[in-house]
Amino acid sequence: MDFALQAGSNAPLYQQIREGLRREVAAGTLAVGSRLPSSRLLARDLGVSRITVTTAYAELEADGVIESRAGAGTFVLPPWPLAAHHAPPPETDVWPAWQAGLGQRSNPERDRMLSQVLRGPLGPDTVNFSWGAGDPRLVPTAEFRRVLTEVLDQDGAAALGPEHADGYPPLRRCLTGYLRQLGLDVTPDDILITAGTQQVIAMVAATLVQPGDRVVVEAPTWPGALDAFQARGAQIVGVPVDADGMRVDLLEEILERERPRLIYTIPTFQNPTGAVMSAARRRALVTLAARHGVPILEDDHVREVRFGDPIPPPLAAFDRHGNVIHASSFTKSLIPALRLGYVVARGPLREWLTSLKRTSDLFSSTLMQRALCRYLEQGAVQRHWRRVSRVYRHRHATMQAALAEHFPAGSTWSGVAGGIVVWVGVPPGVSVATLYDEALRAGASFVAGEAFFAEPADQPFLRLNFAALDDEQIDRGIATLGRVLNDHLGASAGALPMTSSRGRPALGMPPA
Amino acid sequence: MDFALQAGSNAPLYQQIREGLRREVAAGTLAVGSRLPSSRLLARDLGVSRITVTTAYAELEADGVIESRAGAGTFVLPPWPLAAHHAPPPETDVWPAWQAGLGQRSNPERDRMLSQVLRGPLGPDTVNFSWGAGDPRLVPTAEFRRVLTEVLDQDGAAALGPEHADGYPPLRRCLTGYLRQLGLDVTPDDILITAGTQQVIAMVAATLVQPGDRVVVEAPTWPGALDAFQARGAQIVGVPVDADGMRVDLLEEILERERPRLIYTIPTFQNPTGAVMSAARRRALVTLAARHGVPILEDDHVREVRFGDPIPPPLAAFDRHGNVIHASSFTKSLIPALRLGYVVARGPLREWLTSLKRTSDLFSSTLMQRALCRYLEQGAVQRHWRRVSRVYRHRHATMQAALAEHFPAGSTWSGVAGGIVVWVGVPPGVSVATLYDEALRAGASFVAGEAFFAEPADQPFLRLNFAALDDEQIDRGIATLGRVLNDHLGASAGALPMTSSRGRPALGMPPA
Repeated sequence: MDFALQAGSNAPLYQQIREGLRREVAAGTLAVGSRLPSSRLLARDLGVSRITVTTAYAELEADGVIESRAGAGTFVLPPWPLAAHHAPPPETDVWPAWQAGLGQRSNPERDRMLSQVLRGPLGPDTVNFSWGAGDPRLVPTAEFRRVLTEVLDQDGAAALGPEHADGYPPLRRCLTGYLRQLGLDVTPDDILITAGTQQVIAMVAATLVQPGDRVVVEAPTWPGALDAFQARGAQIVGVPVDADGMRVDLLEEILERERPRLIYTIPTFQNPTGAVMSAARRRALVTLAARHGVPILEDDHVREVRFGDPIPPPLAAFDRHGNVIHASSFTKSLIPALRLGYVVARGPLREWLTSLKRTSDLFSSTLMQRALCRYLEQGAVQRHWRRVSRVYRHRHATMQAALAEHFPAGSTWSGVAGGIVVWVGVPPGVSVATLYDEALRAGASFVAGEAFFAEPADQPFLRLNFAALDDEQIDRGIATLGRVLNDHLGASAGALPMTSSRGRPALGMPPA
Repeated sequence: MDFALQAGSNAPLYQQIREGLRREVAAGTLAVGSRLPSSRLLARDLGVSRITVTTAYAELEADGVIESRAGAGTFVLPPWPLAAHHAPPPETDVWPAWQAGLGQRSNPERDRMLSQVLRGPLGPDTVNFSWGAGDPRLVPTAEFRRVLTEVLDQDGAAALGPEHADGYPPLRRCLTGYLRQLGLDVTPDDILITAGTQQVIAMVAATLVQPGDRVVVEAPTWPGALDAFQARGAQIVGVPVDADGMRVDLLEEILERERPRLIYTIPTFQNPTGAVMSAARRRALVTLAARHGVPILEDDHVREVRFGDPIPPPLAAFDRHGNVIHASSFTKSLIPALRLGYVVARGPLREWLTSLKRTSDLFSSTLMQRALCRYLEQGAVQRHWRRVSRVYRHRHATMQAALAEHFPAGSTWSGVAGGIVVWVGVPPGVSVATLYDEALRAGASFVAGEAFFAEPADQPFLRLNFAALDDEQIDRGIATLGRVLNDHLGASAGALPMTSSRGRPALGMPPA
């Protein structure tokens, strides 16, 4: 020990001792592994109280400089890993048992898919058909910047504070007006603001689904929903999709046999097939579910991106039984970074979901809610929807033409009436995982269809985003994919002839 | 039927039929319950194709104007509730069975508490001690507005797009620097961005806790954590708190008896007691948990709001076993509306939490993450923390003096070294629920202590926020609470004499 305490210093005595000892350890005067004097002894030597020394020792112990071992004394520790160098993370085989026991969480293919749809550009030359949102170039950045600053200027600190768990009341009022136009008989109290439709799916699953319960979904469907239901231990029951959406004619038998706890559906621009459920089927589905006492979770997240055909009202507009849980968001059709969606629910369910929203993340950002509210009040969202719908309609036509030109016989796809993706079946025998790697090397990406099914499909599929790419990108990317696909088919089974004739679409694929 | 089709109209024929019929229904020419002509008949009458009429009928059915009944024909329905008037929501006893079966979700007292802490000002004259965040007047609105617009100007649409589920990489790099200063040996890959610490708690619970599992928490503790663990079916095991935090000396016996799945702790400015776990206890806790193979979830959300005393490093800085899951956020100490926090986790757990983040809400707003990143990089957060710490320290002293002046004998509380709340025990026999109503009428609010315990406490407590109020409000509010408390005691058991002597603090309440 070789340091003096300074009575006139501003630093408390225990701090001076702490710093002195720390310097000696750093300098090597106090060697790693050496034993410190007892607190009693050091206190006497330095002429301070014993509590001063024990405080200094406790701090040094907290600093990771020394360690006290019961009955043996206090010892100098090796330097912190971070003080010396950046230590590599521990090897997998030294994880604590509780970690090692976690195992694989879920479907890795689905995790990969969800990660792809959130990933930004893959490089300047890669055509990113796997993107899960609209075209970033069409996001109303300047308008949104304006409403954000207006909100901050006018609302001040209130715009940065906490918010009710069920959402900013004026936003709920504003959404009421929109939903009434769609035929939903709602009050602001029926609306709960969430972090998007995915959060609604997860919360409804947590509320209604117990391990072993059956959940009916469209096959194929949104992988995030499969994920949420399976995370609750649900058994997934898939109902095929055709050009008019879910095959409701097959549903009654399924409801009787499986007695499901929930029906999850995307009736408008179904993800991934793009199908729109007909009005007749909507009515039939609502009636059937009510008769069997099974709630419907309606995911209506991309209704407003549409190419002109009339779209039937949401399922919730047909519902007179309080049986349809209606969810939507502004992620795909407006601004992904808003992280805002909503659910229309009443009665005990509404209470549960509000409580669960608190448990999940307390509340959604009031700044974003206020900005969205202002944006909606100014009618700006309708203008935006019209604008992107016009652009995406054109790109969709480009995509259809490119597919017809470049994709091999045996491929199937359909035109869609809205949304941002098309669903393409490729000839049986294509290994989509291999194709994905080959396509990425050649400069194009897609989402592998596998992730959209709870059970293996009988045909390989690709989901292709057409909305986020311009004509040149679409042409180039589809030509690339077509070439890779043909090479793949040639390598695996001898080249198929190029032809413009198409097989009948399978599994929810109406003809173009 | 009394309408003519206009061949020169822009509207398609089926739309003209739809509108014509709709007008007749609205006018009453077509009475509710009357049968429409068959599509074949109407097509012949109007001179259009039958498909045109069936399309119009399908749309009207979707609109809820008519209904087709198999074998019987198509009939005019009663007006929509929304067309006529705003119908009241259905009565509770007509909820579908699946709704009625939901029952009560959770502890209503806790729901009420969580709702209180998120609620804004209760009125101009009410002193809001129940607030769950810092002073909105100190939120750096102008600075945050500046970084937001800088981000939007420089990053453009990328700032409004999707984000990786694990968070904006530069923000994770930036947090790495901060966490290394605290003694955590982390890389950006160890950090997962979340919607706050509550989301971390919910996700860790979903990953580790199965129904019937034991979870060790401090008693009292943050109600949102009790909620998240109980929502997973956990049995809560409470460990008392004293001036040095969780009574780690009682823990070994509990770990052996209960074999818990998880230990949840708030070691710094424990919520609600404000206790700071000593360095010695931190080391002991980490060692003990590692020996028993029990992971620790460390909630460190308010570390940086502190009044000068040195605070030991986080538990995670003592951990050489990968056993501490470290979580924090910027909600309480910076801007609640950010909705951003993070968790430090490695190995399989990190994979699980990332996957679960996708399942929960896909990702957190990249705009908010970019703004926070820029704010941190500019060193602005340290300036903000110093500023609010100085102000809150003063308010804390005001609160202590006011409590000593106005609260009746038998009350207990302690000074805290940081954070935003104090925890006050009131004399046994006080009905806190009644007191709450009386206080609100008199112009002051608090959070009832009951919500912080999984099991009934043996003494009534109030949690009081001192950070969000100025000196005048604190003085006035505490005087009001003291008066109401004295009246309450007088009414229930004869007035107690006012005195400055205090009983020994109970249950985690070190003396002031």
